[in-house]
Amino acid sequence: MTAERDVKAYMTELGQKARLASRLVAAAPVAVKNKALLAIADELNACRSMLIAENSKDLAAGAANGLDAAMLDRLAVKDATIDKMIEGLRQVAALRDPCGEITDLNYMPSGIQVGKMRVPLGVIGIIYESRPNVTIDAASLCLKSGNAAILRGGSESIHSNRAIAACLQRGLEVAGLPSTVVQVVETTDRAAVGELITMPEYVDVIVPRGGKGLIERISREAKVPVIKHLDGICHVYIDDKADLKKAFDITLNAKTHRYGVCNALETLLVAEGIAAQVLPSLAEALAEKGVELRGCEKTRAIISANEAVEADWSTEYLAPILSIKIVAGLDEAIEHINRYSSQHSEAIVTEDFTRARRFLTEVDSSSVMVNASTRFADGFEYGLGAEIGISTDKIHARGPVGLDGLTSQKWIVLGDGHIRQ
Amino acid sequence: MTAERDVKAYMTELGQKARLASRLVAAAPVAVKNKALLAIADELNACRSMLIAENSKDLAAGAANGLDAAMLDRLAVKDATIDKMIEGLRQVAALRDPCGEITDLNYMPSGIQVGKMRVPLGVIGIIYESRPNVTIDAASLCLKSGNAAILRGGSESIHSNRAIAACLQRGLEVAGLPSTVVQVVETTDRAAVGELITMPEYVDVIVPRGGKGLIERISREAKVPVIKHLDGICHVYIDDKADLKKAFDITLNAKTHRYGVCNALETLLVAEGIAAQVLPSLAEALAEKGVELRGCEKTRAIISANEAVEADWSTEYLAPILSIKIVAGLDEAIEHINRYSSQHSEAIVTEDFTRARRFLTEVDSSSVMVNASTRFADGFEYGLGAEIGISTDKIHARGPVGLDGLTSQKWIVLGDGHIRQ
Repeated sequence: MTAERDVKAYMTELGQKARLASRLVAAAPVAVKNKALLAIADELNACRSMLIAENSKDLAAGAANGLDAAMLDRLAVKDATIDKMIEGLRQVAALRDPCGEITDLNYMPSGIQVGKMRVPLGVIGIIYESRPNVTIDAASLCLKSGNAAILRGGSESIHSNRAIAACLQRGLEVAGLPSTVVQVVETTDRAAVGELITMPEYVDVIVPRGGKGLIERISREAKVPVIKHLDGICHVYIDDKADLKKAFDITLNAKTHRYGVCNALETLLVAEGIAAQVLPSLAEALAEKGVELRGCEKTRAIISANEAVEADWSTEYLAPILSIKIVAGLDEAIEHINRYSSQHSEAIVTEDFTRARRFLTEVDSSSVMVNASTRFADGFEYGLGAEIGISTDKIHARGPVGLDGLTSQKWIVLGDGHIRQ
Repeated sequence: MTAERDVKAYMTELGQKARLASRLVAAAPVAVKNKALLAIADELNACRSMLIAENSKDLAAGAANGLDAAMLDRLAVKDATIDKMIEGLRQVAALRDPCGEITDLNYMPSGIQVGKMRVPLGVIGIIYESRPNVTIDAASLCLKSGNAAILRGGSESIHSNRAIAACLQRGLEVAGLPSTVVQVVETTDRAAVGELITMPEYVDVIVPRGGKGLIERISREAKVPVIKHLDGICHVYIDDKADLKKAFDITLNAKTHRYGVCNALETLLVAEGIAAQVLPSLAEALAEKGVELRGCEKTRAIISANEAVEADWSTEYLAPILSIKIVAGLDEAIEHINRYSSQHSEAIVTEDFTRARRFLTEVDSSSVMVNASTRFADGFEYGLGAEIGISTDKIHARGPVGLDGLTSQKWIVLGDGHIRQ
């Protein structure tokens, strides 16, 4: 038997076990799911030295294979990392169970009552890079939402993930759930990903978490629906009816609060009528933070900036760089955004009611904001309690995806012997 | 240039026009969309003789090509067909606009207000068989929900669809909308379907309407999300705590109200403890209607029936045939349903609260009913006003898909200069 056939057989077996387990976890009462979450937290706490020892094997191999400092940092499992995993598990345990929620139950003209009941999706495949903490994040959200999960982390984190998997399995068993509710793919063979994303009979949805290349490849090759998160090319538009202080605060926060995040500001649009008032102080504050400015011609007539070229408008810098464009007004701002944005998050700063209303309606992005920083686009800030990712798609889930995004709704009909006429 | 490249260029052009038109129709006020729907109805009314003449070309070609009577019947456009199209357009015009609906707008701890706004998906591709009335059905639902549409009907209906397309385009123009909001594919080349389902840059979702073969092929080959509707293998389970009259009425209605529909009953499950009471009168009534019974061994000990074989449990008859299985009780009924059902619609007949509650929770189908006929699984009966199909998927839309199923929700954030701490 070839290695490839081995991987196929292995993944098929994981899929079959996940499908069976999904039925059991879907029917599990919330108390059982919460017990498992807390038991997993206890296991992690009890196994700190084992987790750190296994992780050190990955770190040593990663260093030997030339991983850069940032990658090694994301790969590392320290006591503080374990603390965060434990806290995350406890937070998810404290969230309301999305399953079984009945909404919109109304009487119809025929006399039947029709409503919707929230139910798990089934089996969720998560593909992510070498960040062991994602193993716990993803497992906890899938479990709480009543789904089985198959987790495939980056191959550089294989020892860490196997160690975490052991804790997951013991925690599930403590709660009386099958250990197959969460399975970690224990081969580093890349063919495993190819199998995972082409088994619609066993996997209901794929959530890739990682770089753009990974997500594009998975979206292209998957035969299973994908909840995907691509770029965050976010805009702030400062309208000429903006409050200057709000414009200043929001722009600075959106750009400089954190640089490497998908909801950070990348392109600032400024109405021509207010540019001379707002840009100089902003440029000064951004310069103090070490942010490189790249401006259109009109911008460079007001402040000192490098020249912005066409490619700047469609670049996610994830770095202390800001492109700035002066626009005639709202129409041009919306046009620019709908053309160049990655449909992640955009904000307008204005005191004008009608312009705010138009911006909210006409900008086609997953989060659209008035007088607030794009940095708020986040599952925790939106009250979801946690998020498995931010969807830049429109199908199924858009924007921050919390527990509800990992569920579906079935229709329920209640009658008293009703038949159709 | 080869014919294949011609089709690719043609479909790309349709896609580009649809993408542009989708932005305009997404921003159109409901009054404009309704004006277009009513103007299309007026155009159809004014063009009756042209529509019937064009349709007669399709009917003649169809007859010459050996289409059977049922296919010719579905292909025919008569005065009554046009009346129904006109009534459908007026009904959709009377529905509430799903777009712009804001829900769940709440203050968060940070002080921002976060809610959701319902928005169109963008461009919807509909692929259907040679049923000209679907052209109007699909166009009206896409238009009302603020989407652009590309419609690809069966090649046998090409003259009818071109004639209907002309009415659609004039109606759109009367309302001041671009005629490209709804485009009908005017080539019968089958390669056009292949292009339509692999243009994610221009098409946001595909809705195939038709036979299982068509839907399976499209699902397999599509690079665009598909809202699909496969079989309806629907079950009624008569519990031993059932009211006998309700059990009788519901079973008879679900099986015999209409045979060729996806929400018709195909397999009846009966609890052992009540089988002898309920089956004889049911068998008699079903025999009167000419329904063939296929029963398990225990069934055939009570009533006269042909032998049901394994394949019967997974067959959608769409015909006057009913398979009957006697089960020990609720557990076996749920197990049978979750194994053999196509996850369309299932009903329990019982007076027992706990069993009803368990059936609603544990049966994993798009519609789950208590004491009501499976025939109610329908967009009109559920109060959606209309439906574009019944989804047997869990992603995005499940069960009857109305206007809401053709939309997404974006997040909106309202602040007063709020920044993230």
